[in-house]
Amino acid sequence: MTGWVQIAGLGPGAEELVTPQAAQALAEATDIIGYIPYVARVPDREGLVKHASDNRVELDRSRHALELASAGRRVVVVSSGDPGVFAMASAVFEAVENGPPAWRDLDIRVLPGITAMLAASARAGAPLGHDFCAINLSDNLKPWSLIEKRLRLAAEADFAMAFYNPRSKSRPEGFAKALDVLKEACGDTRPVIFARAVSTPEESLRIVPLPDCTPEMADMRTMVLVGSSRTRIIDREGAPIVYTPRSTP
Amino acid sequence: MTGWVQIAGLGPGAEELVTPQAAQALAEATDIIGYIPYVARVPDREGLVKHASDNRVELDRSRHALELASAGRRVVVVSSGDPGVFAMASAVFEAVENGPPAWRDLDIRVLPGITAMLAASARAGAPLGHDFCAINLSDNLKPWSLIEKRLRLAAEADFAMAFYNPRSKSRPEGFAKALDVLKEACGDTRPVIFARAVSTPEESLRIVPLPDCTPEMADMRTMVLVGSSRTRIIDREGAPIVYTPRSTP
Repeated sequence: MTGWVQIAGLGPGAEELVTPQAAQALAEATDIIGYIPYVARVPDREGLVKHASDNRVELDRSRHALELASAGRRVVVVSSGDPGVFAMASAVFEAVENGPPAWRDLDIRVLPGITAMLAASARAGAPLGHDFCAINLSDNLKPWSLIEKRLRLAAEADFAMAFYNPRSKSRPEGFAKALDVLKEACGDTRPVIFARAVSTPEESLRIVPLPDCTPEMADMRTMVLVGSSRTRIIDREGAPIVYTPRSTP
Repeated sequence: MTGWVQIAGLGPGAEELVTPQAAQALAEATDIIGYIPYVARVPDREGLVKHASDNRVELDRSRHALELASAGRRVVVVSSGDPGVFAMASAVFEAVENGPPAWRDLDIRVLPGITAMLAASARAGAPLGHDFCAINLSDNLKPWSLIEKRLRLAAEADFAMAFYNPRSKSRPEGFAKALDVLKEACGDTRPVIFARAVSTPEESLRIVPLPDCTPEMADMRTMVLVGSSRTRIIDREGAPIVYTPRSTP
């Protein structure tokens, strides 16, 4: 048996957002590797071995996947969203680059998925409908000064912004600092979208003018989208629509 | 019959990248509206009316969809990729905002899809694995000065970058200017990925150091990804892997 690794994105949560390509990989796998809640999304079946691990062991998990594939297993590393956006694909390639040379010859594929910012954007309307950036607000793997620099430059560029990992229990102060930077750098009342657990039964969506945003509006299951200076709100019965026009005069 | 509009992303081209959610919308529709090649992707069936239109009539197309839904039709507006990323969602909401008040009460949903930059990124490895931005290089709807400003600020922020609509027959000079700005602002040999027609039989992928890039390497079917200063290349038999590490020291 020739082994392989496929790094698959399972989307934000709903099964109807899992691509047929990812579903096919799961059906062909002998082993599933990933963070506990993502592995739990894959149904058990005869002959399938599930290896669930806790958060923050991405490199160990990657090496495990590569070792299993070297031994001939068909391994799917599962991510939520898209594996190439703040998820497992970079970790696996870091392990490849720093591992035994033979790992470079393995059959490794990345299967794209619906990433959280695009699922959140779709629920709100089209806030990312013009130029935008995506920033991971966690300072586990980069200094806070770099995050702050990127926030200020993104505001100056008038990008809409999508924030992954805005706030965790262990770093509650980072998002408060980010909001302070944005309020100062943007200097207007553009809309902020707090989209929690999109496409799951716990989904909630909240649209708040930037000056009124407070840190506790986000947790680690929240995707935060900030409009550009051009972003519009369409009021109507029920939830308003937030969108960024295609053109800038 | 109660009408609705669903703005659906069909992904970059392969059927295995169409979400079950989008497939379900197509199955329930009475009418499909969109740009000729995207409408052509939807198989004919009894009772389905297909309205294909040429490029650059996005607002007319949007109003048509909203009129049909107002008359009780179930309308799917098809985009390639994700409809919220430089595609039809913003156009539909522009039409809603500027149209008759009754359009605001219509049942309008955006169905996310696999956007071109994430399909291209997956094929190359994980070049967008850290903070990044997405910029539409077309100056049809915004001044070139704004594009140039955003390129310079994105380079200063050390974002990886994804460029949509890099080059068209009618504007061949824009991408040449963009490359000049990037070569100057980045000042290093980071990798650039030219990913053409990803996931289709015409797919091609080319990885070129920034100083060696030339404008004719891109056309309108090409997605251009530019690494950050941290982006790595893993050489091996066959195509190299390009990825951006998760951490910045």
